[in-house]
Amino acid sequence: MPTERKDINSLTIAENNLSGQEMFKILDKAKKLESMGKKIIHLELGQARFQPPVNLKKALIKSIMEKNYGYCSSFGLIELREGIVKKVSNINVNIDNVIISTANLLITQALHLLCNINDKVIVFTPTFPTYISSCQFLNLQLKEINLEFKNNFNLTIEDIDLAVKSNPRAIIINSGNNPTGAVYSSSNLDYLDKVCKLNNIWLISDETYRDLSYGVSYHSMDRYDNKNIIIISSFSKIFSIPGFRLGFAISNKMIIDKLALSNATLFSCLPIFTQFAISEIICTSDKYISNVNHKTSFLIKKVILLLSKSKWLKSSYVAPKSGFYIFLDISKSNLSGVEFCEMILNKYSVACTPGVSFGQSFDSYVRLSICGKNKDVIQGVSRIINYFGTISYDE
Amino acid sequence: MPTERKDINSLTIAENNLSGQEMFKILDKAKKLESMGKKIIHLELGQARFQPPVNLKKALIKSIMEKNYGYCSSFGLIELREGIVKKVSNINVNIDNVIISTANLLITQALHLLCNINDKVIVFTPTFPTYISSCQFLNLQLKEINLEFKNNFNLTIEDIDLAVKSNPRAIIINSGNNPTGAVYSSSNLDYLDKVCKLNNIWLISDETYRDLSYGVSYHSMDRYDNKNIIIISSFSKIFSIPGFRLGFAISNKMIIDKLALSNATLFSCLPIFTQFAISEIICTSDKYISNVNHKTSFLIKKVILLLSKSKWLKSSYVAPKSGFYIFLDISKSNLSGVEFCEMILNKYSVACTPGVSFGQSFDSYVRLSICGKNKDVIQGVSRIINYFGTISYDE
Repeated sequence: MPTERKDINSLTIAENNLSGQEMFKILDKAKKLESMGKKIIHLELGQARFQPPVNLKKALIKSIMEKNYGYCSSFGLIELREGIVKKVSNINVNIDNVIISTANLLITQALHLLCNINDKVIVFTPTFPTYISSCQFLNLQLKEINLEFKNNFNLTIEDIDLAVKSNPRAIIINSGNNPTGAVYSSSNLDYLDKVCKLNNIWLISDETYRDLSYGVSYHSMDRYDNKNIIIISSFSKIFSIPGFRLGFAISNKMIIDKLALSNATLFSCLPIFTQFAISEIICTSDKYISNVNHKTSFLIKKVILLLSKSKWLKSSYVAPKSGFYIFLDISKSNLSGVEFCEMILNKYSVACTPGVSFGQSFDSYVRLSICGKNKDVIQGVSRIINYFGTISYDE
Repeated sequence: MPTERKDINSLTIAENNLSGQEMFKILDKAKKLESMGKKIIHLELGQARFQPPVNLKKALIKSIMEKNYGYCSSFGLIELREGIVKKVSNINVNIDNVIISTANLLITQALHLLCNINDKVIVFTPTFPTYISSCQFLNLQLKEINLEFKNNFNLTIEDIDLAVKSNPRAIIINSGNNPTGAVYSSSNLDYLDKVCKLNNIWLISDETYRDLSYGVSYHSMDRYDNKNIIIISSFSKIFSIPGFRLGFAISNKMIIDKLALSNATLFSCLPIFTQFAISEIICTSDKYISNVNHKTSFLIKKVILLLSKSKWLKSSYVAPKSGFYIFLDISKSNLSGVEFCEMILNKYSVACTPGVSFGQSFDSYVRLSICGKNKDVIQGVSRIINYFGTISYDE
C-alpha cells in the first residue's frame, strides 16, 4: 500500500516570479504571425543584420572539423581568456581575472554570488530587463532609480548619491545603455567608483556595448581597482553573433574562482568550438568592429533624421551615443507602451518592445532596435511615424 | 564630497555555498599536470571517445554556412522539439510539452521553479553531483537517502517510503544512474509515481542515460501522467557531444511555459546551429546509438573482467546496467576517496572522481568513467588494480 502523508499539500509551484524578457514573447508572437503568412518588420530584438567576421566562420568550421565536441574547463577556453586579457587596457588584469560564460547568465551568477536573499540591488532605469528579472529570480529587493529624459538619460551625481543613500548590497550600471544609448561620463564614473569603494558596495558594470559607441569616448570600469567590481561583457553585439551566447566577466581572482564554481554548478562549461572561433579573431577584428560601428551609426542617424522631421515625434527621443536602440516616448498616442506594441504589431506589422520592460516607470515608451536591414528599419520606423500622423490630438 | 553611509558594511559575498562539480576541478588539475608534460589517463569525466554521427557534423556545418547566428525562441528550435516528440512513446506528449535547455542547467531551473527557499528535496545517493550543488545554490534543504551496495544500488520500496515520509517538496531520481549504472525496476517506478501523485510531490526524473542501458529494459517516467513530473534528458551522451551543452525537459504545458520564462531570464536562448544539427539526425540515429551502446558495454565488460580477477577489488563494484561509470569501493586502500584521487593522479597519472561528490556517505568510493579509448581505460584501471597489489593489508 502506498504511503499517504497526513499533512498533504496541494501540488503548487514556487512563489518566485519569473518574468523572462518581454522581447522574446514579442518575437514569439511575431513569428506566429509570420507563420500565418504576414511579413513582420522586426524592431524588437537587438540582432544585428551583419555577417560575423569571415575569419570567425572559418575558425568555427575548422574547430568543428577538428572534433572539439568535448567538455571544456569551467573557466572557459584558455586561448579565449588570453585574448580578452590582451584587449583590456589595465595591465593588472591577467588570465586569473577572466572567466567565460553567457553574458546574460553572468548577471544572475554575479548577483547570486554577491547577494543574500532580500538584499537590496540598485538599477538605474530605463535599463536592460534581465537585471530586473534576475533580481526577481533570486528573491532580491530591487530598487529602480529613474534617470531622466531631460538629462538625456545620463547618470548624474544626484542619482549616484540617491543610490548610495539607500544602502544597497550592489549597484548595476550599463553604460553604453540598452535601451537609451547613453554613455556615462568619465567624471561621474570616477565618483561612482569612489563612493562604492568607500561604502563597500559591489558594482556590476555591464559593458556589452563598449565597442559600439560613436561620437563619444567610452569609459570602462576596467581602469579601477576590481576589489568590488565585476565587469560583464558579451561577444554578441561586436561580432554580430547573438546566437553564440558567449560573454565574459572580469573581476578579482576570488570572484572569478567563485564564478567558475557557479559555472560548474549551473552548466558545467560552454562549447569549445564557439570559444575557439572567437579566440582566433579577437585580437585582429578592430577593422570589422569599426565597420559595424560606422554602419550602425549611419543608420541611427538616418532614423533620427526621420524622427526629427515628424511633427509628433521630434521631441520624443534622445539621440543614442552607443548601441543600436532608440527609446521612444509614445505618450502622444494615448496608449501605454504595451498597448502600443500590440497595436503596431497587429495593424502595422512592426514588432517593438514596450518601455515597461526596461523599468516600471517607462510605460509611455517603446524601444526600437535599429539593427536590421536599412530598408526594413526605415520602413518600420516610417510606419510608426505614419501611425502618429493618422491620429488627431487635443493640443 | 562622496557620500559615506553610517551603517557601512564590510565587502563580503553572499553566504550561499557554491560547490560546483568535483570532476571539473580534477579535470583542471589533470590539465595542469599535462601542461607540465605528464601524460594523464582521464577516468574522471563522462566524455565519450566516439565521434558524433557523421550526419550531425554535416548538418552543423550546413547550419553554420546558412548563417544561423541569431536568436532563437526561448522554447528552443521548433524542429528539434518536434523531433523529441517523435521519440517519446507517450502519445499525449506534444510540442507544448517539450523545451530545449542545457540538461545540467535544467536541474537548477526545475528546482527553482518548484521549490521555495528551505523546501525539502530528496535525492537517492550516490547520485549526480549537480542535484546536490543545485540545492545548495538555491538554498534548498537537501536530504540524501543512501541506496545500498548490497541491493546493487537499486531503489527499493523502503527507500521510496522513507522519502515520502520525510515530506519533501520534490524528489529527484536518476535511473540509468550516474555513478552506479543502476536501472530502476518498472514496478518500483510505478509505486514511486503512485505515492508521489497521492502526496502531491514533484518528481524530477533525469533520464540522460536512458538510451545507454544494456542487458535490461529501461523504463521512462514519460509513460505516466506528467502533472507532477518533469523529465530531464541530454543529447551529450547518446550522440557523444557533451560540448554541445544541449538537452531538454518534458512536462505539462504550464511547467514548460514557466521554464521558457526561466530560459529567457537566465540566458535568452541557445544557439540555433547546434539545435538544428541535432534536429536533422534525431529520428534516424538508432543505429548510431546501438553501436555506441554495443561498444560501451563491451568495454565495461572488459573492465569488469579485470576487476573480478583482482584479489582486492573483486567484491568492490556492482556491474553497471547503463551508462559508462563504475562506482568502486576503495576502502581497502585505507584512504578516503578524496585522498585516493589525489594519490592516484599524482603517483599513477590516473584522474578519477571521489565518491563523496555523489553523496556525503560515499567517501570510501571513487567513480571511474569507462568512456575513453579502450587502451587508455584498460591501462588506467590496470594501474588502479596494480596500486592495490602494492599495498599490504591487515586481513
